[in-house]
Amino acid sequence: MNLRRPRGTRDYLPAEMCVRRRIFERIREVFESYGYGEVQTPAFEHLELLEAKAGEEVKEQIYWFKDKAGRKLGLRFELTTSIARVVASNPVMPKPIRFYYIQPVWRYEEPQRGRLREFYHAGIELIGVKSPSADAEVIAVTCRSLKNCGLEDIKVKVNDRRIVETLLREFGISEANIETGLRILDKLEKRGRDFVIKELSKVGVSSEHGSKLIEILGSKGSNEEKLEKIEKCVKDWPEGVSGSRNLRMIIEELYDGYGFSEDTIDIDFSIVRGLAYYTGFVFEVKAERSLDIGSVAGGGRYDNLIGLIGGRDMPATGMAIGVERLIEALRNTGNTDLNEYRISEVIVIPLGDKCKVEAIKVAETLRDEGIPTVLDVTGRRISSALEYADKMKIRYAIIVGEREIREGKYTLKNLEKWEERKLSLKEILEGIIRGKL
Amino acid sequence: MNLRRPRGTRDYLPAEMCVRRRIFERIREVFESYGYGEVQTPAFEHLELLEAKAGEEVKEQIYWFKDKAGRKLGLRFELTTSIARVVASNPVMPKPIRFYYIQPVWRYEEPQRGRLREFYHAGIELIGVKSPSADAEVIAVTCRSLKNCGLEDIKVKVNDRRIVETLLREFGISEANIETGLRILDKLEKRGRDFVIKELSKVGVSSEHGSKLIEILGSKGSNEEKLEKIEKCVKDWPEGVSGSRNLRMIIEELYDGYGFSEDTIDIDFSIVRGLAYYTGFVFEVKAERSLDIGSVAGGGRYDNLIGLIGGRDMPATGMAIGVERLIEALRNTGNTDLNEYRISEVIVIPLGDKCKVEAIKVAETLRDEGIPTVLDVTGRRISSALEYADKMKIRYAIIVGEREIREGKYTLKNLEKWEERKLSLKEILEGIIRGKL
Repeated sequence: MNLRRPRGTRDYLPAEMCVRRRIFERIREVFESYGYGEVQTPAFEHLELLEAKAGEEVKEQIYWFKDKAGRKLGLRFELTTSIARVVASNPVMPKPIRFYYIQPVWRYEEPQRGRLREFYHAGIELIGVKSPSADAEVIAVTCRSLKNCGLEDIKVKVNDRRIVETLLREFGISEANIETGLRILDKLEKRGRDFVIKELSKVGVSSEHGSKLIEILGSKGSNEEKLEKIEKCVKDWPEGVSGSRNLRMIIEELYDGYGFSEDTIDIDFSIVRGLAYYTGFVFEVKAERSLDIGSVAGGGRYDNLIGLIGGRDMPATGMAIGVERLIEALRNTGNTDLNEYRISEVIVIPLGDKCKVEAIKVAETLRDEGIPTVLDVTGRRISSALEYADKMKIRYAIIVGEREIREGKYTLKNLEKWEERKLSLKEILEGIIRGKL
Repeated sequence: MNLRRPRGTRDYLPAEMCVRRRIFERIREVFESYGYGEVQTPAFEHLELLEAKAGEEVKEQIYWFKDKAGRKLGLRFELTTSIARVVASNPVMPKPIRFYYIQPVWRYEEPQRGRLREFYHAGIELIGVKSPSADAEVIAVTCRSLKNCGLEDIKVKVNDRRIVETLLREFGISEANIETGLRILDKLEKRGRDFVIKELSKVGVSSEHGSKLIEILGSKGSNEEKLEKIEKCVKDWPEGVSGSRNLRMIIEELYDGYGFSEDTIDIDFSIVRGLAYYTGFVFEVKAERSLDIGSVAGGGRYDNLIGLIGGRDMPATGMAIGVERLIEALRNTGNTDLNEYRISEVIVIPLGDKCKVEAIKVAETLRDEGIPTVLDVTGRRISSALEYADKMKIRYAIIVGEREIREGKYTLKNLEKWEERKLSLKEILEGIIRGKL
């Protein structure tokens, strides 16, 4: 039988799961502190919904199947579309809506560093607000979440797609090819300048213009300098003006309200993001010491998605953190907080069948006091049980033998100090709780 | 566009998710207190693995699909088989292994009360121990978990399949039909006596014998009386003797060690469970006020599964709680603990664009102190913002206007008492933290 797990997936054992759990909780803490409420949607959706505004590339990556009634279902590749469905089909919810999720998603991609076929998204959606204040909040929540997990060295690259679209138009792309143009530009970092220029030339942007476009998108300097430069470039196009004005307002709130600076926030006109549903503001977050794993978080504004899938038109913005990438980035910073891990404090070992019942009672008493306790149920020799305890990093062993039961004092071994003494259950409890044994 | 979610699935909004989260945490707390460590495996597995020992009925319920490489993958219908794979492919892990999981599973069943196509299993596996002490521990963890969630009125029905197999043999079934016989008996509660007798007659058990068999399986009386009766019935069959002896030892530990009584633990020889991999001890838990939703938890011993899928032979026992059924059972007991729910304590409302930055700072200060705070980012009138706060059950509103900023005192409204006063941020913080506003 094929014992391997499916390609591109992973198993997480307790030591690693402990890290994941801690990360989940730290992210959750921040999301909730901003008033976001958790939601859960099904792992699969009608394929039609998932494909609605995914974009060509992601569409190809959806795991899909027919159920017995012949309906095409697909495993979600992110949560935004599912949440858009929830909002579209519940029109009476008070606005704005602040939802969060920490859930697995699936994409059929070539497995590589930072890319699995099953991975977790921890994200938020802020629905019902047009104002750039909402976008600024989304960025703030993202950064605070990453920092709460211990990731300090982040760079947030922000942009507005309308700026890029305006430039594409200015350089001769036809309206029908805008989406394709964005998709090509999204490949800039991965495939390089020459590839992008060549691809753009196929949709009406001359090589000269393509080259000029890339130069503008790669604009250097302070955020203020970049904004001033781009404002001049797009000043004759209302969409472009909206985009640059929006970006300016986001930056202002991030600086003056949330207290971020140029060290963290970096305008980058070349960021467009891969998903087709974004309509304006987009951003992604990179960890400076882990640039090779791609972005650890990303998001943007999707003002048309809810209307497009059949709901009332509604502005919306959001983001998702890639949990596995975040953990990898944390490891690359040498974060040691991730290594702490112990399942049980105590192992209770009965000496022979006659002592089993008493050993159970001892273990239950410890658990009632909140002390994680393993009971040795194997009936093996005490030396084997202690060897096991050592491998499991258990700190204390309590030996329950017939003499111990008669005397009302158990043998307590501190397995780290390799010390041993006879104590009553009460003394043991107090000692462990106070960390004094 | 089809806005409905796939049939048999549900969306969980924040109020409900809050309940689910609380339940997850209470279960997790108990699992960890017994020394179980969390694991996570992929949502899908090679279909071959899932089908290995699922049994005919469940096999039909697996959602499966081919990936682009033509491999057949199936969504897991439970976690035990996946964990068996993990253990089989990691032979060096110290034994016994105590794993737990709280994860979604999928089954293509007809949606009905207590049955969804996507639902959560919270379960444990105790691997590497043959002793009935392991089975007793599994039952104890199950009951403690359910009780920690608030479910008190439970009945644990315990049995050993070897007893039933022995009786089937005694009443004339051929060795090849044992598995079918068990599957037929598993339908006793749902389809009734006549159906079972008829089906059994097709595999070599005469109607007379079938009727006698059902009578024995339905044996009444105290647990001790049932054990004595069955010990006589199976005394000439080594497998049956092992089964009844095992059951007796489990009961003894549950009574004398873990402190359970006949009120909770109930021997029921008719329980066989639907999955094909069980080899001996089996059990299920019902909530007395929710008998119609089926069992809220169930499990048993599966000593052959790990060897069968290609690992070293290894005894194992485990259980899973159906989280949605547990929550439904809790609701049926009128548990009010489930209704508590508030996302944010405070809403901060800026009066006009000029006050935005200051409002952000106020909100951030509250969040830093651990107070969940929503910022009004809509720019709407104060009355609309307060109406929203009321719908969201937010307790306090802080109004940040130009005069407030000048004076260094904000307007604080207690939205429950409908009181209002002017306070400095420090006074507000202290008041909220001490619950004195």
